[in-house]
Amino acid sequence: MPSKKPPTELVEMHGHIVDSLLLPKVLDAILSRGGTYHVRELKLGERQDDPSVARIEVRAETPEKLAEILADIHPHGAAPAKIKDCQLVPADVAGAFPEGFYCTTNFRTEVRVGGSWVEVQNQEMDCGIVVDAGGKTARCIPMVAARLGDRIVVGHAGTRVFPPESETRKANLFEFMASPVSSEKPKAVSVREIAAAMKRTRAAGEKVLAVLGPAVVHTGAGELVVELIRAGYLQVLFAGNALATHDMEQAIYGTSLGVSLEHGLPTDEGHEHHLRTINTIRRMGGIRAAVAAGVVKGGIMAECVRREIPFVLCGSIRDDGPLPEVITDALAAQDAMRAHLPGTGFCLMVATTLHSIAVGNLLPAAVKVACIDINPATVTKLMDRGSTQTVGIVSDAEPFLRALVTELLK
Amino acid sequence: MPSKKPPTELVEMHGHIVDSLLLPKVLDAILSRGGTYHVRELKLGERQDDPSVARIEVRAETPEKLAEILADIHPHGAAPAKIKDCQLVPADVAGAFPEGFYCTTNFRTEVRVGGSWVEVQNQEMDCGIVVDAGGKTARCIPMVAARLGDRIVVGHAGTRVFPPESETRKANLFEFMASPVSSEKPKAVSVREIAAAMKRTRAAGEKVLAVLGPAVVHTGAGELVVELIRAGYLQVLFAGNALATHDMEQAIYGTSLGVSLEHGLPTDEGHEHHLRTINTIRRMGGIRAAVAAGVVKGGIMAECVRREIPFVLCGSIRDDGPLPEVITDALAAQDAMRAHLPGTGFCLMVATTLHSIAVGNLLPAAVKVACIDINPATVTKLMDRGSTQTVGIVSDAEPFLRALVTELLK
Amino acid sequence: MPSKKPPTELVEMHGHIVDSLLLPKVLDAILSRGGTYHVRELKLGERQDDPSVARIEVRAETPEKLAEILADIHPHGAAPAKIKDCQLVPADVAGAFPEGFYCTTNFRTEVRVGGSWVEVQNQEMDCGIVVDAGGKTARCIPMVAARLGDRIVVGHAGTRVFPPESETRKANLFEFMASPVSSEKPKAVSVREIAAAMKRTRAAGEKVLAVLGPAVVHTGAGELVVELIRAGYLQVLFAGNALATHDMEQAIYGTSLGVSLEHGLPTDEGHEHHLRTINTIRRMGGIRAAVAAGVVKGGIMAECVRREIPFVLCGSIRDDGPLPEVITDALAAQDAMRAHLPGTGFCLMVATTLHSIAVGNLLPAAVKVACIDINPATVTKLMDRGSTQTVGIVSDAEPFLRALVTELLK
Amino acid sequence: MPSKKPPTELVEMHGHIVDSLLLPKVLDAILSRGGTYHVRELKLGERQDDPSVARIEVRAETPEKLAEILADIHPHGAAPAKIKDCQLVPADVAGAFPEGFYCTTNFRTEVRVGGSWVEVQNQEMDCGIVVDAGGKTARCIPMVAARLGDRIVVGHAGTRVFPPESETRKANLFEFMASPVSSEKPKAVSVREIAAAMKRTRAAGEKVLAVLGPAVVHTGAGELVVELIRAGYLQVLFAGNALATHDMEQAIYGTSLGVSLEHGLPTDEGHEHHLRTINTIRRMGGIRAAVAAGVVKGGIMAECVRREIPFVLCGSIRDDGPLPEVITDALAAQDAMRAHLPGTGFCLMVATTLHSIAVGNLLPAAVKVACIDINPATVTKLMDRGSTQTVGIVSDAEPFLRALVTELLK
Repeated sequence: MPSKKPPTELVEMHGHIVDSLLLPKVLDAILSRGGTYHVRELKLGERQDDPSVARIEVRAETPEKLAEILADIHPHGAAPAKIKDCQLVPADVAGAFPEGFYCTTNFRTEVRVGGSWVEVQNQEMDCGIVVDAGGKTARCIPMVAARLGDRIVVGHAGTRVFPPESETRKANLFEFMASPVSSEKPKAVSVREIAAAMKRTRAAGEKVLAVLGPAVVHTGAGELVVELIRAGYLQVLFAGNALATHDMEQAIYGTSLGVSLEHGLPTDEGHEHHLRTINTIRRMGGIRAAVAAGVVKGGIMAECVRREIPFVLCGSIRDDGPLPEVITDALAAQDAMRAHLPGTGFCLMVATTLHSIAVGNLLPAAVKVACIDINPATVTKLMDRGSTQTVGIVSDAEPFLRALVTELLK
Repeated sequence: MPSKKPPTELVEMHGHIVDSLLLPKVLDAILSRGGTYHVRELKLGERQDDPSVARIEVRAETPEKLAEILADIHPHGAAPAKIKDCQLVPADVAGAFPEGFYCTTNFRTEVRVGGSWVEVQNQEMDCGIVVDAGGKTARCIPMVAARLGDRIVVGHAGTRVFPPESETRKANLFEFMASPVSSEKPKAVSVREIAAAMKRTRAAGEKVLAVLGPAVVHTGAGELVVELIRAGYLQVLFAGNALATHDMEQAIYGTSLGVSLEHGLPTDEGHEHHLRTINTIRRMGGIRAAVAAGVVKGGIMAECVRREIPFVLCGSIRDDGPLPEVITDALAAQDAMRAHLPGTGFCLMVATTLHSIAVGNLLPAAVKVACIDINPATVTKLMDRGSTQTVGIVSDAEPFLRALVTELLK
Repeated sequence: MPSKKPPTELVEMHGHIVDSLLLPKVLDAILSRGGTYHVRELKLGERQDDPSVARIEVRAETPEKLAEILADIHPHGAAPAKIKDCQLVPADVAGAFPEGFYCTTNFRTEVRVGGSWVEVQNQEMDCGIVVDAGGKTARCIPMVAARLGDRIVVGHAGTRVFPPESETRKANLFEFMASPVSSEKPKAVSVREIAAAMKRTRAAGEKVLAVLGPAVVHTGAGELVVELIRAGYLQVLFAGNALATHDMEQAIYGTSLGVSLEHGLPTDEGHEHHLRTINTIRRMGGIRAAVAAGVVKGGIMAECVRREIPFVLCGSIRDDGPLPEVITDALAAQDAMRAHLPGTGFCLMVATTLHSIAVGNLLPAAVKVACIDINPATVTKLMDRGSTQTVGIVSDAEPFLRALVTELLK
Repeated sequence: MPSKKPPTELVEMHGHIVDSLLLPKVLDAILSRGGTYHVRELKLGERQDDPSVARIEVRAETPEKLAEILADIHPHGAAPAKIKDCQLVPADVAGAFPEGFYCTTNFRTEVRVGGSWVEVQNQEMDCGIVVDAGGKTARCIPMVAARLGDRIVVGHAGTRVFPPESETRKANLFEFMASPVSSEKPKAVSVREIAAAMKRTRAAGEKVLAVLGPAVVHTGAGELVVELIRAGYLQVLFAGNALATHDMEQAIYGTSLGVSLEHGLPTDEGHEHHLRTINTIRRMGGIRAAVAAGVVKGGIMAECVRREIPFVLCGSIRDDGPLPEVITDALAAQDAMRAHLPGTGFCLMVATTLHSIAVGNLLPAAVKVACIDINPATVTKLMDRGSTQTVGIVSDAEPFLRALVTELLK
């Protein structure tokens, strides 16, 4: 860039950039960061199906500020008009990326290597991108997975993302419902739409992933999850020590944290049932052994074992025990969950904050997510992760799942 | 009282005073207020069915402090051993009580007039007690209702309250559930118990009062309330301008605040539907006329009109319009609600803070209350009013009512 | 419109319609309602300061659907290119508008009468517009205020609104902060910005209006409000019976609902203090008399009386008493509040849902609002009313007001 | 037990069993579980300082039911009148306890071995008790720590717990405040009491443990924590990857999750700052190295490193990175926290659910805990763990800590 003129870059945008709000967002981001713009060209689609094209000159006071602006507008689909290959820098520290590494979103992304655009595999937000030696494949890896010498993408040059264009175009209700979090919405509609999305997922041969918190069992919805499994609407289960323990406590003692689902009456021995359940399962060597031995006869975990539904139980510092199947190392648990994501088309998150956010971090934007929680803060937090494919519903686990199962089975 | 000895009063307690926590509460209240006690006599029931008797000498530094302590322990059933008539002072200011007036609880209360104990009528908390000229009847009245010359009870002498003894004795689940507010409870049990209490209420020939907030309609539960009415489980309705308007907007436009219950899609004209509904009803002269004219064909209000279910719509400063039937004066609205309380055995409060608390203030402790709200703060606030007959359930209006209707109709 | 061609209307938009999101919103609204569009002309401002112009042909299947779309896009500044006078219809029912009345927003609005654009006075959302006989003035009136023969604007023709263009253009932080509701934001920044806005308001000779809930007193912030008054940062107070009673209970008994602000210890007599306070004020004839007589020596109400700060106390069905100054009729209370709005530049709402929403309904969009509540639901509800001038802050009344007072006084 | 008579056990209680509610709880528990009682002897302390003695005969239908009742009433201090040694069973499975193991509370506990009462070390709830070979010492161990052959206490015989007697005896405000969770409390009192408790803790030579969530940094309270450290009111820090990362992001970039604490403005690059911070620290080998190298100059972590305040960072499946010091294995993290508990007299938990509950599980009941969170659900959950030494305050992290620091330093 010439020294007397302010640093400038010409960027291009394509698609439904006006009504999907991408162009306004880009213009706004430029101004917010202290830059200025000049719209060199804007061909607006006259009708709603015509794509648009914009060529915008971005200006900033310093090259650093310009770089910041370009980084900001990049996830909205504004890429430099001048196309280059991406820059690859070998990892010089194991378990860390080179300085200036390209930080991924959960949108579909391509990198340009040797003049060709390569689609990035295992798309996941907050990762880096490693390109293989031959330059034929690229994939997202978390920081800890970087090995010495891995060729890591640095900077934004030669990368492009494909944000969903349809942010405000309600192609279907599911997308529409994505925005405002409130308990005061027609619940039957939400149930119907989620059921429809689950049916579409299964019809497409994709998996439904359920992420469940212990309140599923506390509120008495364990049997409803069993029905979901039997009806073929649950192919993978992610949960924690608590869900599995409460479920098996229910199977063994008829209580959940000591509260009887039959009578609602707690027993002062309640927490003991919880601990004795874990101890019993530990003594038997694990959940599968306990189910095989007939010690755990019913409930979610027994159904998973019998139907060979894979489950990943992730540990936390809050856990008692834990159960033998619980993966106590957080990184190992993340990897165990990642292994089940390919082929997942829908994710149902119920009554769990920690696991919902953890799984939300791992999922590519294309996977539809329905997050049901009675606490609006949990739902809001997940919505903040930004996927337009995420529906947040403030509702109560048991009655909601009851309505969902009824809708799915009818 | 002699000047050298500390002021002292001997009080008596009767009943299940140990296991119902009344005795411990009294002893604690004495200490908390800086008094001391001497248990003169304690006959503890040896077995759980034997009543107990305690005679406790209460001591304080000054007569004022002693009076404070006696006031504190009085609602727990500790009354002076020496029985006197209550003190009656004529109201000297209209719309106000004499200084030192006896402040009512919502527990059953008696006052002693002319040597006889008289049961207080219209029991309501935070009122005064007026005794008729003949001394044969006594009743609670709110401050504004005091007329010049009304004989108002002053002080605690000659009054006794009958707190429910069973605070910790779970005679039935309904009582048990009363205490801790949490969304993580078995919901099917709550539904079952509430349904059972509603059935018992009707079987006893008592009325079910429903207090409903607009989220009942927003979440799509209007039709479920109609089913409750048809099945005979709703005899009186208290609500506000919003519930009635949303319900009739739904009947006229198929939306609630502009959100379609069919499709879940809001329309930007949403709030207009709301206003146009009110305007239409105002133009017709009221809800009854609109139903009669066939303008409002379905929904809660139409069902009430057709089945002659009485309803009280109370105004608030937040209201648009309002509808002609709305009582905009708060005191008139309170009186209108009071008129429907006799004969009420059960009160179902759903998704309303303002109205729930207002009605909670009016109800005697003997009326069972189930308060359902997705916001734990609302439920907690109502529980704080202290009735052991109140069950608070953190849940979602529509799915909860759906389950309740299913349970009632099966 | 011709019978064979679909109904069509040409609309125009002016200003920063791209980066303020108005154009995308309009295009989206057309599609959402099943219409189609054809962008006849789009002159996009090349640089950020250049205004843009768009001419869009809107098409729908039926004239009714077209009317619905035009109604939807009207508040976003899209007005028919063909300019007409507004349609005036005399009110034929007292206390109601003619069918099809124009429903107001809280944005600045003009109506065209006799060929001239007239600015609408008393701008308030959810009202109608009445035009005087001479056609020189127009103003918003609530439904109940319509008198027989009042000339009411009907339909959208001859009306135009001026939505704030800057929705996404963070001219100042205050606007920026307007969007997402979360407790996890830098609080010192919020405090600083609110203090700055309050200072600007006073410097401009405008009034600061405070809307306060009882938790202000419960949390111990009464004295902080007194400091706000003394420092000249509170010119009008809106509240309810509870705030005023708790404040005076604090002045008389040193407690708030029986909880000592000094020791934090509740007394079982707590609620009695509350009632006795009301009774005492009623006996004296009102707050002013009680302050004059020295019965109420300190606190918010005493400060208001002494400094002649006007206050409006609005009643609700939840009230005990109430205090003599409380306006128990909801419509009278709304009017009393409206009388104080002219000249108000800033509104500080703390810890009140009912009053905040009621006042939010009355305020024109141009008045800046800061809503502080510890319950995110309250803050979210107020933000939903849509003013970009509203900042919602999830925080705790006492510590927040303490920081605000410190910032204002330094 | 004879076959014709119902199973019976005589239990004894000592101390302030009436006004501390222990006796009523025991009687209630017996009835709730279907048993009956006969109060053989009750010597009630006549005055408040006199301890009481009760001897109660408990009866149940079957020996199993009797055992359940005895287990229920045991934590309330009701122990069999007939004293035996505790039963010790060698662990037959590594990492699990024998069937029927004694399940610990967080109250001070003693076990009887060889005729002598031995105090249990490392008191922690939901553990087992292991007794050494010589029978001289006993200590709590979690399930996973049980080694083959460890002598584990089984059943309730020969064990006794010392529940705090003072549950309702407000010896000091701290205890009083323990019960109801609400945001509507006088905050200055809470601040004063917590400050006083922290001062007493330090004066007693005990440590203050802080458990902090990321909202501490988000709300801008990082510098206040630094002041706490400097003033000597923070001796150990427990937190997660997020708190430490946000704190160092703040030190390096001046943002927290991309939001500037100076301006409140978020940057779209926000999350990148977060990730780049972790990457930078990973590249340097850890927090201590980064502080030593001057890369992290200010903030909580830098202050901890410089002042040699020990910190434990516990991992979770939600973490990015994580930082090198983060202990990713949940069991290792629990043990690392346990190592810092001896000598801890006060625990300040701010804005963290996961870590607060995890630490609450580890702490003996005698450690005072103040839990501050803006979400009432978090506070309620912690209070449910049952320690009367726990104060829950619903408030906002930054303004609350600001007031606390001001109170501590004055």
